[in-house]
Parts: sequence; C-alpha cells; structure tokens
Amino acid sequence: MATPGFRIGLVGATGQVGKEFLRILEEGPRQDLPISELRLFASERSAGNVIHALGEDRVIRVAAPDPAAFDGLDFVLTAIGDDLAKEFGPAIAQSGAVNVDKSNAWRMDPHVPLVVPEVNPQAAAGHYGIIAGPNCSTTQLVVALWPLHCANPIRRVIVDTYQAVSGTGWRAVDELRAQNHAITANIAPEVQIYPHQIAENLIPEIGGLRAGGAFSEELKMIDETRKIMDLPDLAVQATCVRVPVMVSHSEAVHIEFAIEFSPEEACDILSNAPGVVVIDDPKTHAYPTPLRAAGHDPVYVGRIRRDPSHPRGLSMWVVADNVRKGAALNALQVFELIARNRWFRGNRDTHAPFGDRLAVPAR
Amino acid sequence: MATPGFRIGLVGATGQVGKEFLRILEEGPRQDLPISELRLFASERSAGNVIHALGEDRVIRVAAPDPAAFDGLDFVLTAIGDDLAKEFGPAIAQSGAVNVDKSNAWRMDPHVPLVVPEVNPQAAAGHYGIIAGPNCSTTQLVVALWPLHCANPIRRVIVDTYQAVSGTGWRAVDELRAQNHAITANIAPEVQIYPHQIAENLIPEIGGLRAGGAFSEELKMIDETRKIMDLPDLAVQATCVRVPVMVSHSEAVHIEFAIEFSPEEACDILSNAPGVVVIDDPKTHAYPTPLRAAGHDPVYVGRIRRDPSHPRGLSMWVVADNVRKGAALNALQVFELIARNRWFRGNRDTHAPFGDRLAVPAR
Repeated sequence: MATPGFRIGLVGATGQVGKEFLRILEEGPRQDLPISELRLFASERSAGNVIHALGEDRVIRVAAPDPAAFDGLDFVLTAIGDDLAKEFGPAIAQSGAVNVDKSNAWRMDPHVPLVVPEVNPQAAAGHYGIIAGPNCSTTQLVVALWPLHCANPIRRVIVDTYQAVSGTGWRAVDELRAQNHAITANIAPEVQIYPHQIAENLIPEIGGLRAGGAFSEELKMIDETRKIMDLPDLAVQATCVRVPVMVSHSEAVHIEFAIEFSPEEACDILSNAPGVVVIDDPKTHAYPTPLRAAGHDPVYVGRIRRDPSHPRGLSMWVVADNVRKGAALNALQVFELIARNRWFRGNRDTHAPFGDRLAVPAR
Repeated sequence: MATPGFRIGLVGATGQVGKEFLRILEEGPRQDLPISELRLFASERSAGNVIHALGEDRVIRVAAPDPAAFDGLDFVLTAIGDDLAKEFGPAIAQSGAVNVDKSNAWRMDPHVPLVVPEVNPQAAAGHYGIIAGPNCSTTQLVVALWPLHCANPIRRVIVDTYQAVSGTGWRAVDELRAQNHAITANIAPEVQIYPHQIAENLIPEIGGLRAGGAFSEELKMIDETRKIMDLPDLAVQATCVRVPVMVSHSEAVHIEFAIEFSPEEACDILSNAPGVVVIDDPKTHAYPTPLRAAGHDPVYVGRIRRDPSHPRGLSMWVVADNVRKGAALNALQVFELIARNRWFRGNRDTHAPFGDRLAVPAR
C-alpha cells in the first residue's frame, strides 16, 4: 500500500447510500484517504451509465460476485440488499480488498466486526476482510451512549425512535412527497411502499415481525448496540416508528447509569465527544431537529436532563442524518480507520471463516 | 333538576374543542344527558354570530365572568385559555352550574377533581363546582394504564409522545397545511406558530420551559397521571414531541409492574377495559395509527409486548384523537357522570374554596 492513494470500489453506486458516499467525496479530499482509483458498480439496469465523481466521468460496471471484478482494490463499500451482500462479501475479501458492508447481512456474524469508529475502532483491527456498519438508528444511538458509558457505566437504555422515510430508500421519499402533494390537491394518496399512508400519519412498524411482537428494526437496535459497545447483556428496549420526515432519524432516549449522573456532567462529556455536537439551550428553542441535522455529519444531542422516574437516570434527544452518519459517512470513516492504522490483511489465499472462500485475519 | 333535560353552556364555542363538542352532540342524543337548553358563548369577535347546533340556530353570546350569564344552567364546559378559565370557573360555580374546564387553570388545585371517567369517576363526587379535564396526552395514557394498574400495580412509566398539531389549535393545523403546500410548490414555508418549521420536521418542545430542562407538557403528564391515578409518588418520565400529523396523539409507553405480567394477560385486560379498543395483530400490519384513530372515541392500544430490558416490563403503543377523547368527549362524559349520579351541589351561597366566590361541595 505504498501507492499515492487508495483504490476504492462502490457497489450500489446509484442507490441512496452510494449517492451519499459520492456526495461526501465531492465535498473535498479526505486527509487519511487519498484516492487513486474509484470503481463504481451497480445492477445491470444502470450498467454502462456514467456518473460524474471526483472530477471525472466514470462508467458504471455491473457488479458480479467474482473476485476478478474487485481485483486490485483496497476497499469496497457494498450498499446493497442483504442477499447480494451475502454473495459479494466473501468474493471481495477473497480479492484482498476490505469490504465494508452497510446491509444487515453480516452484522451479527461473529467473524465480522460491527464498527462505529467513534465507539469501537479497535474491533476493526481483527477483521477477516468484511466489516459491517450498523443500522442507521443504532449508529447515532451508540455514538451518543458510548462517551457517557465510559464515564459512568450504562445499565439500561430505553429508546423510542422517530425515523425518516429515507431510511427505506428513495422510493419512500418519493411516496411521502407524492402523498403530501395528493393531500394538498385534495386527492386520495396512493399507498405502495408502506402498509399505511405515511403522510400526516405514523407507522409503528419497521422491518419484519419477529417472535414476541417486536419488529426487526427494534431487535437490531438491541443486538447491535450490545455488540458495538461489547456489553452482551446490556438491557435495551426500543420502539421504532416511521414518521413523515424526509431525512434524519430522531430518538427519545432514557438511560439508567451505575451511579448518579448530573445533566451538566453528561453535557460536558458529550460536548467533548468525537462525532457529537450538543445543541441544548431549550429557552432559545435550541435542540436538535431533523431539518437541522439533514446534510450534516455529527450526531446531535439535546434535551439532556434528569429522568425523575429513576434515581440514576438521564433523558436526552438524539438526531442525525440517517443516510449520512447512519450509513455512507460511517463506512468512509471505517475506510479511514483501516487506512490510518494499516489494518490490511496480508496473505489472501488461506483459511476462510466465510464458507470456503476466505481469508486470513488482518495483521 | 326534575326538568326534562339538562341546560348546558359552552364557553369557547368557536374554538377547536368547542366545535368538537358540538359535533359530538350532533351525532345523536346522549342517553344520560338529555338537553333542554344549549347556550353558546365566545369572545366578542364572534358575538352575535349564529351556529347551527342540535337542530337549531343559536346566537353566540359574549361570555363574561358574571354568574348572571350562567344563570339556570346545570353544566358549563369552558374550552378557553388558562387565564380566562381562572376567571370564569368561580363565577360558574357560584351560579350553581358545574363547570368542567379543559384548560390547565385548575387541574392541580386540591379543591378541583381532575377526572377521566374511565379511571377516577368517584373523584368527581366531591367537587366544589369546578372539575378539570386533563391534558389530552395524559387522558389517553391513564385510560390505558388504569386497567393494567388495577390488575398489577404499576411502579414506573416512561412515555415518549408523538403529538398532533391540532393539540395547539386550528391555527397550527392551518400552518402545517400551508407549510406542506409551500414545500409541494417549492416555496420556503412560513413559520409562525411554532419556533421551527413543523412540516417534514419534529419539535421536541411542547409548552413552556420549566426548571430542570423539562417542558410543561412533560410535567403535566407526570403530575396529572399521579393525581388521576391517586399515586402521588408514581415514577413517570415523559418526552413530548410535536410531529407533522393533523389529529391524534400517539405514545410509546414502557411500564414496570409490581409482578411479572404476560402481554397476553395485559391484552385481555385492555380488551375488556372501558374506553379502550385493542388493535394488535402486527403480522397483518394492524396496530393503532393517528389516521385510524382520528374522529373516533376510543383510546386505541397495540404493540403490546414484553420489555426485554426489565423483568416485569411491558411496552405498548397508545393512540387517541386528541381533540375528541383528549378534550371534548371527556368533558361530555364528566357531565354524564354527574348527571347519572346526581352529584350536583345543593346550596350555592356558602363557603368558598376558590377565593371569596365559592360554594359548598357536592352532596
């Protein structure tokens, strides 16, 4: 890796997360990630199309789960569905590149680190070629929880979410826009993406139904938070709700700590925490909102106050751009983390934990 | 009170709650509340206007805090601001009528019962002429909590709300409509009612700021829940959030009970509870939503499931029409409760707990 830059692949270049990834790269060079090559992949539908990125026109290739397609790349972001990600991951790792995957395919695999660089960067060191990024609603939660936990161990978290339609993808954004338009024009809104109208409504269902009446998004928030924070028994409960907001997920969070914790101390800690910006001056109506967070990198925290229902409790309000920090930015930060620490794998042709196709752990 | 019907006054007849009250009366006669007279009051702006109600055109009078204005009435609903409600209450009680007030003016007054008929009907018996109705977000919460508490004492409640703009009044409904219209037309939305744009946004601020960083709506939910359930030390925490929804408040609720409680048992109890309708079949996408609840009487409960973060915890999702059960309907139910039980006051000219103007307790 003594080249003048890194060679990066993006699978899912025309999707929502892929586009956001390219948008972030357009904003300027990343100090720890000089780029010498950018190779874009998408489905056959988009093959041959041209995308302008990093100052050049790039032709979109059809991705195939074949190591040859990724030959010579250092990093590949897969921003595609779970099933495809399951196919591509081992092939990318086999090619010698590091695959950062945004889907749910690998997150809970014991051979795959689930990484939020502000929280558990060290977990990335031992990867076998695949690193997972968490669910967007988990990412912003753990960025806000972790610095507090380091100061005062967290015993229990209750979180209720207010999640933007962009978490579902651009078709859902279009549907909300179209439904708002229909209501404005006094026409009955069409419902296609969600099981109910989302305009001027709420849908307390995200993901598939699981045993016990929870939806999968709620279980992801529990399982992924435990894995990222390395607290396998942490008590967590979540209710996940889709709201008629375009971009940015918001979360009402209630935390029980090991010892009493003043809101002022928590606020101080969060104000100095990586990736966090505190907006907390309610007397001037200053607190995070989805519109305020959209298009920005940080996880915003406000409404930090005592929870009077618990002697060691605090409540707060956490908002972040779900497409950006919740997906594309986090993946880019993982690339930077690996690049900075030279956590690449050496020999690419040995024993494989992912079926028969992988790969030695990183050095 | 041997007349063929009750004589009812409505102060705030042109407001949101007043209009909803008249709409409910239009839907058909109320068995326990035959009406022989309906007297409408509003501010000077509306005086002399005519409203069609109960099959007749009625002229709107200017209300004045003068017992003569209410002379001969049995019940008066005040659906007006806190300051005016403070003035009118004692005058109405002095006139001999029972004042049910929807504002925040009297709720925490020790001489004023705070009544939700499904929860604490007996509290209404000892009124001194004024009975308060709770905040809309509290009303639906206690209707859902109370039957559970009767079966298994509740130790702690955490509630995060998703509150409709109609809770602020019709001007806020108009503002959300106008902002949606502006966005659809690619015009910058105007912001007047709320401190931030509410269309496609969330505002975690309802009411005025109080000590400790809570907003008054959040403290109301704590204080009023305790008073109505007669549990002065109940542990309650709330985060209240305005969402871009027109009608119906929704609540993600997490409850800790004295002993373990199965979701099935809780569901059975709620299915048989007064004022509650359970919609809980998530595999067919059946759960309460604001659009589903709007215009209907019940408090809808769904997503009843274990809270895996607490050994005796349950979580659920509670939705109700905030203008209807949250305000107008509850007031009407209090009238019916008093009428059915003949809990009127006798002598109206004696000792007064509300300054120098009131009134003996009801018999």
